Amino acid sequence: MKERAPKVITSEVPFKGKKLEVVREGISWGSGRKSVVETIIHPGAVAILGITKDGKVLMERQYRHSVRGYLYEIPAGTLEPGEDPASCASRELLEETGYRATSIKKVGAIYPAPGYSSEVLHLFVARAEKQGKQRLEDDEAISITLHTPTEALKLVEEGKAFDGKSALMLHMALASPEILSQAG
Amino acid sequence: MKERAPKVITSEVPFKGKKLEVVREGISWGSGRKSVVETIIHPGAVAILGITKDGKVLMERQYRHSVRGYLYEIPAGTLEPGEDPASCASRELLEETGYRATSIKKVGAIYPAPGYSSEVLHLFVARAEKQGKQRLEDDEAISITLHTPTEALKLVEEGKAFDGKSALMLHMALASPEILSQAG
Repeated sequence: MKERAPKVITSEVPFKGKKLEVVREGISWGSGRKSVVETIIHPGAVAILGITKDGKVLMERQYRHSVRGYLYEIPAGTLEPGEDPASCASRELLEETGYRATSIKKVGAIYPAPGYSSEVLHLFVARAEKQGKQRLEDDEAISITLHTPTEALKLVEEGKAFDGKSALMLHMALASPEILSQAG
Repeated sequence: MKERAPKVITSEVPFKGKKLEVVREGISWGSGRKSVVETIIHPGAVAILGITKDGKVLMERQYRHSVRGYLYEIPAGTLEPGEDPASCASRELLEETGYRATSIKKVGAIYPAPGYSSEVLHLFVARAEKQGKQRLEDDEAISITLHTPTEALKLVEEGKAFDGKSALMLHMALASPEILSQAG
């Protein structure tokens, strides 16, 4: 199959919110085949597997209103306009956990929901050192705990439904222990 | 930390699209702390790791307009109103690949984007048997190939950014080979 991209023939923004907007596009495949696609436009985000000197992973327990419950997750956050993903990762790690990244390395990037969202989530592994206290935003309520990667994965997966990015990064780290040592 | 949920004090729907809608809610934590949250309301979805008799995984190559490119993914699709996730998984597998699920088992569920989307993605493993031809929707362009789980994971992860659910399910299967044999 030849990999062709369709042409965008119409475009409008029916919703513009605080962080997200919706774009509605009419697209044409050239063969006469046309469709209308609604996409969430997302600024991009980062997730950080923070590893302490003794090999423990920084985990967060956090309320997520979109799914009406508390989840175990690795630290993560949304890119500010123009922000470099690695800087964002260090900033979010410090703000959410009080741990500073003494070294940080990108190990990949995923599309969490390519069916409807433009979000790219950049994945980082960081060596994390206790620095100070959390500095949370008004709408964040996060508690921090430390676990081995295997324990952390068990915690993540214990719910009826669990956080996809955290499970993936822990599986990646357990499958390729060099990812953990890359943290420096 | 006591795990309390905030109270929803206001709620409106500023956008209602074909599949998605946006809900804007004012929430209160009781302590006087208040915030406004915008959530994508999603009907839920399924992803299927389809395994053939000789242990190969069914992979799709598909154009995703939201990220403007082609991705390698496992079969997946959105729940119809009132549809049972396992029925949806069998239906999507057959429609997208032409393979029938001779047995199917749920192995978990994830929140792909809990920061802003209510989506729950149900994860299934199925024994897949060639049945007929794909029956694609107007806006789908999907080609199918078969690979060992290890090869499939390499394909998924080869892009600069890749599909999160497919990488996770392949990692889960490689970490717990009983997942593959559970397909029957």
